[in-house]
Amino acid sequence: MKDPVIFTTKAFGAQTKSSPLAATTIERRTPTPHDVQIEILYCGVCHSDLHTVRDEWGGTVYPCVPGHEIVGRVTKVGSDVTKFKPGDIAAVGCMVDSCRSCPSCREGLEQFCEAGMIQTYNSPDKYSGGVTYGGYSENIVVSEDFVLRVPENLELAAVAPLLCAGITTYSPLRHWKVGKGQKVGIVGLGGLGHMGVKFASAFGAHVVLFTTSPGKTKDALRLGAHEVVISKNPDEMKKHLNSFDFILDAVSADHDINAYLELLKRDGTLTLIGAPQKPLGASAFNLIFKRRQFAGSLIGGIAETQEMLDFCGQHGITSDIEMIKIDQINEAYERMLKSDVKYRFVIDMASLKK
Amino acid sequence: MKDPVIFTTKAFGAQTKSSPLAATTIERRTPTPHDVQIEILYCGVCHSDLHTVRDEWGGTVYPCVPGHEIVGRVTKVGSDVTKFKPGDIAAVGCMVDSCRSCPSCREGLEQFCEAGMIQTYNSPDKYSGGVTYGGYSENIVVSEDFVLRVPENLELAAVAPLLCAGITTYSPLRHWKVGKGQKVGIVGLGGLGHMGVKFASAFGAHVVLFTTSPGKTKDALRLGAHEVVISKNPDEMKKHLNSFDFILDAVSADHDINAYLELLKRDGTLTLIGAPQKPLGASAFNLIFKRRQFAGSLIGGIAETQEMLDFCGQHGITSDIEMIKIDQINEAYERMLKSDVKYRFVIDMASLKK
Repeated sequence: MKDPVIFTTKAFGAQTKSSPLAATTIERRTPTPHDVQIEILYCGVCHSDLHTVRDEWGGTVYPCVPGHEIVGRVTKVGSDVTKFKPGDIAAVGCMVDSCRSCPSCREGLEQFCEAGMIQTYNSPDKYSGGVTYGGYSENIVVSEDFVLRVPENLELAAVAPLLCAGITTYSPLRHWKVGKGQKVGIVGLGGLGHMGVKFASAFGAHVVLFTTSPGKTKDALRLGAHEVVISKNPDEMKKHLNSFDFILDAVSADHDINAYLELLKRDGTLTLIGAPQKPLGASAFNLIFKRRQFAGSLIGGIAETQEMLDFCGQHGITSDIEMIKIDQINEAYERMLKSDVKYRFVIDMASLKK
Repeated sequence: MKDPVIFTTKAFGAQTKSSPLAATTIERRTPTPHDVQIEILYCGVCHSDLHTVRDEWGGTVYPCVPGHEIVGRVTKVGSDVTKFKPGDIAAVGCMVDSCRSCPSCREGLEQFCEAGMIQTYNSPDKYSGGVTYGGYSENIVVSEDFVLRVPENLELAAVAPLLCAGITTYSPLRHWKVGKGQKVGIVGLGGLGHMGVKFASAFGAHVVLFTTSPGKTKDALRLGAHEVVISKNPDEMKKHLNSFDFILDAVSADHDINAYLELLKRDGTLTLIGAPQKPLGASAFNLIFKRRQFAGSLIGGIAETQEMLDFCGQHGITSDIEMIKIDQINEAYERMLKSDVKYRFVIDMASLKK
């Protein structure tokens, strides 16, 4: 592959795993024939950004520029691009490429690419030879096949979190066919959970939100939950034994999975989207006696991400956000660690230009 | 309900949790209008018999007469019985009744009866007011709806284990649609596992048997496995990463479930039919990154048990058995604890008459 011409762009990133995020400059390729160049307007702040910046999952290459909930305006397109033109509003999520030829890619499940998806940040970048840089930056250049269209009626800043928190909850709710007549649990009311409540409710299910915080009850009901269960209260939990068709578990801290498995009906499924570090001890009896399933789900493919955005446009769904300026990002990380955000920070990227 | 007339029958059971099984006499009801009375010819020996006799799961009522892999000859039928007549060969499995009206019963999944299935032994018996007594006995009386027909071409003694070990493996392989073009793992080559190998192979899958015992390789291949993996060898295990459509796990001892979860393809399912006492620690990452499912399955409904027996008749499938006399049962339990049986003990119930 011919080396593309490079341009520099402002960004915000970490130089080491212990340094705060700060202004920096990174290189981007000028668009190749299939690329779209996007001026980033808003970027959501995901817990994965923090994990990667601090090398908590291992493998972080520095400088690290995170951000995979990106909404912006197309400024340039490559000569072969057909789906976008300058001026269009566009979005980029957790992936910027994949092998495109394995069974998963051919089925539109690029997140499960057997050669490994190319994530929006900290993945090998075949153009630069380094790693990919994410959305805490002025511009990004992405193959048009991994760029999404954004419905025009939505508030752009509140669209950004749909690109990760949105698709991560939408995809399993669709995959396990959540809908009318079903009782569906959402565990945890954070960035993921609050989108889970909105989607499960929009799909017509009876939605029960599980939280350890009684203070979140009112908000959960406002977001679309029909009931709220304080999960620390065993009596409240027991009232729901054997009654759920599906439970979406968005908790990434260690927790007792059997307390939720036993709430599933026969043939019910509990799907993890949060990823606790320690293995979750599942009781064989809890699985066997009701033929229950314990599963996991990872973001969603590009086609499904577009479907999700279109669904959000039709139903007026966006994330509940708290807007910050880029120089508030380190403080935002500390607040995120305390779950002190309703329910997603979004960076106004205009603040990077100053 | 009018108390039915009672008759006595010879049996073999335990009087306390620490006493060996010995000859005893129990009472059976004479057939009510919908009942079938069966003279028991053969009864398979299941690990559950041992667990219950020794009260290892709690709740055992003594005297305890186990046995739920029953084949025999119909000797009497109630006035309203239409499916059986004296002289017919018939079988009884793990259940003798259920509520018949809950959603699970109406779907033919009586094993998941929401009021609790009535198991063949140690369940509340609405007729006697005591508990049900199983197949280590001369006769049994069961509602015709819970009595199975036996294909005439099969060796009767070797049919008995189909009633538990057979349906326990057949049902999940059918439920998760195992068939041609699929790679299927069976974990453990015991009473359950050897039937899993036979069925998965008969369904056309490529079957891989996992065992800790290299000595079982030849037998596994004879039974229908296409490959054998010694699960203690990490290098052998690694060769199969991400490659299985379905894994049936028949191990009831504690074991590392992640070593098997990571062998599943995207969207693959691992189903437990053995029930280790300790929770099985499943890594969230193993579930999330390939959207894998970790499930459980419990025997099968009456209609599916009949389907399984008919399938066995058509394909000449029975269990590999070792026949014993009733007075060898205590020794057989000790051998079963050492997995020293190929692959199921079956009691020749003629030995009880002497």
